[in-house]
Amino acid sequence: MSGNHAVQFELITGPGDGPRMGRLMIGDLEVRTPAFMPVGTRASVKTLGSEDLEALGSRLILANTYHLHLRPGAERIARLGGLHRFMGWRGGILTDSGGFQVYSLANLRRIHPDGIEFRSHLDGSPHFLTPEGVLDIQGQLGSDIRMVLDVCTPQPAGREQTEREMALTLSWAERSRRYWAQAAEQAIRPGALFGIVQGGTFPDLRRTCAERLVDLEFDGYALGGFAVGEPPEQRWPALEAGVTVLPEERPRYMMGVGTPADILAAVARGIDLFDCVLPTRNARKGTLFTWAGKMIVKNAIFAEDQRPVDPECGCPTCRRYTRAYLRHLFQVGEYLAGRLATLHSVAFYQQLMERIREAIVAGRFAEFADELRARWAQRPPGESARHGKEDPCQSC
Amino acid sequence: MSGNHAVQFELITGPGDGPRMGRLMIGDLEVRTPAFMPVGTRASVKTLGSEDLEALGSRLILANTYHLHLRPGAERIARLGGLHRFMGWRGGILTDSGGFQVYSLANLRRIHPDGIEFRSHLDGSPHFLTPEGVLDIQGQLGSDIRMVLDVCTPQPAGREQTEREMALTLSWAERSRRYWAQAAEQAIRPGALFGIVQGGTFPDLRRTCAERLVDLEFDGYALGGFAVGEPPEQRWPALEAGVTVLPEERPRYMMGVGTPADILAAVARGIDLFDCVLPTRNARKGTLFTWAGKMIVKNAIFAEDQRPVDPECGCPTCRRYTRAYLRHLFQVGEYLAGRLATLHSVAFYQQLMERIREAIVAGRFAEFADELRARWAQRPPGESARHGKEDPCQSC
Repeated sequence: MSGNHAVQFELITGPGDGPRMGRLMIGDLEVRTPAFMPVGTRASVKTLGSEDLEALGSRLILANTYHLHLRPGAERIARLGGLHRFMGWRGGILTDSGGFQVYSLANLRRIHPDGIEFRSHLDGSPHFLTPEGVLDIQGQLGSDIRMVLDVCTPQPAGREQTEREMALTLSWAERSRRYWAQAAEQAIRPGALFGIVQGGTFPDLRRTCAERLVDLEFDGYALGGFAVGEPPEQRWPALEAGVTVLPEERPRYMMGVGTPADILAAVARGIDLFDCVLPTRNARKGTLFTWAGKMIVKNAIFAEDQRPVDPECGCPTCRRYTRAYLRHLFQVGEYLAGRLATLHSVAFYQQLMERIREAIVAGRFAEFADELRARWAQRPPGESARHGKEDPCQSC
Repeated sequence: MSGNHAVQFELITGPGDGPRMGRLMIGDLEVRTPAFMPVGTRASVKTLGSEDLEALGSRLILANTYHLHLRPGAERIARLGGLHRFMGWRGGILTDSGGFQVYSLANLRRIHPDGIEFRSHLDGSPHFLTPEGVLDIQGQLGSDIRMVLDVCTPQPAGREQTEREMALTLSWAERSRRYWAQAAEQAIRPGALFGIVQGGTFPDLRRTCAERLVDLEFDGYALGGFAVGEPPEQRWPALEAGVTVLPEERPRYMMGVGTPADILAAVARGIDLFDCVLPTRNARKGTLFTWAGKMIVKNAIFAEDQRPVDPECGCPTCRRYTRAYLRHLFQVGEYLAGRLATLHSVAFYQQLMERIREAIVAGRFAEFADELRARWAQRPPGESARHGKEDPCQSC
């Protein structure tokens, strides 16, 4: 993969609201949706190599424009042949715009009508991100799917702030779309450009934002500003309001979400793409997702448990190692602990998405989701908690 | 592998002083010697899984009795079916006696005629290691090759101290041999027991110690107390004095050594087995061994270097990744940095041992070693230093 590929999306299941199964083509690479993208913030999905991700069946990962812009720098990656080549990755790459990380990490952040001024969280160096600039950076990275610069409204936020930031997001979206069209005419920017729906927890703002973005005709549409602290009862109506007006034939990406339970809820509402640090970050801390629920493998209860983490899982960790061994590795702080746990959790998310797609095609997604929720609601003694209780996350 | 296998050694090359090639059989598992054992201190060769070690061609690893005794405990590992099963390892395992770690790590260490009293470096809990006790512990671990308890004389040390500690080492060796014979009669202790030659930098003490151990008829002989700070000009004569009196048909293991240059020097003197944390520990710090010499891959000079770490190497790291990518991973502190570097360095040591064996069989070991030394003496600008300049190590 060089990143110089056309990106196409096709729905496999018929039209209509609700869960859908599709196919995202990046050159010859097929990514079946709904799909989950492991997060490779700094050109590495933490603890895993590209060969591991391939072996686990991941085909599309997310990389972080903000972090890569700061280190090693987008120009450097461009000189090294782009991000795919840099990290030895044969799958697809989606890059965010960096706007969210500026919001969550940078110092002295200031939003101007023209873009975002900030100082690096590493060395305080000044930077200015513009809608055009972040597309240039993503072009240097050579990612397959690129995101426009947006303003992520923190929660809780009032209507006035949300509306103001949504308006800015839209004005940047227009600039991005124009810049992208010019670049596309010059045929120097293959790949896809996604717009980002903001509007906080206000369904009407979400709807308006989505309508305006649809008018601009993006290759796909992201729903941003979720998993930043909003209550679930406000989240889903806001999501639905945005999704409702999106064209069926374009992919929909819910950014930074989420727990297995969140993914089920979002798939039910027609979302195709997900990313989240949850499976990888939790794994490194010793919390694993399994078909039986969450497992805190560091618990003493597992000290002599000879079963694999998840008897239903065929990942490299579950094929060879016991809970007792993983518990030991975490207990003594061995490097291998995070890796074995991450291998399992990424594999679990892959399997979850695969079963979701199977259930959609079989026309029984709702039953499938209900079965899983019922299963996760039962808490095997000492070993698991509900998936849905997990803190949401959208950070890097 | 369960650890319940007979251990046999056979020389493939003919009799005589100098480099030799052999075959160590652990049940059906063949380990060609000279061989290097990666160090899996706490039941994990840091950053690597057992599947990685298998893929790299490692067949015999070293595990640390002291660390495993403290956590998770030898009884626990016994209840879990032994160390092989615990860590999902299908190769062979050599366990040290724990004496060296007590010497280097424990608090309030005190050597008694009967054994070593110490307090755990983790929680200060009191322990007492006896010659019989460490064999019991290693029996619980179920390792294939077990080491007697010895006293490792630190350097520099005078003759009196060295002689006193050698005498204690010998008295413990006798007790170990007796205990082992009783156990063997009861057929509860398969595997091999190695004695350990001490005697510091005094050739005559080394010789005496080796002679006395040979009289006790161990399955193999280790040369301990090296790489603890002794000057090279004293190291090799002391080693030779011990090796000279060892029986040809038994394996010889130089503990805690070493750099590639040290291994060449020791192989030339008839050593069959090695272990050292150098390749794995240095790798995690960004210093890699290559056929061209040592490479500090964190150096800025590699920031846009698209070559693999070692163009002569076919390891998973060199097959897929560039120096630029490794440099980036170290620069930003990614977990993957240590893993990719360790994969290469363990692979390099495997390849080194393989080429050493080929050279021995071809009758051209001396030329091979000279070629390598000449190669490593040339320092490619900014990228490597001499292998032999590395600090020696025997610590865990």
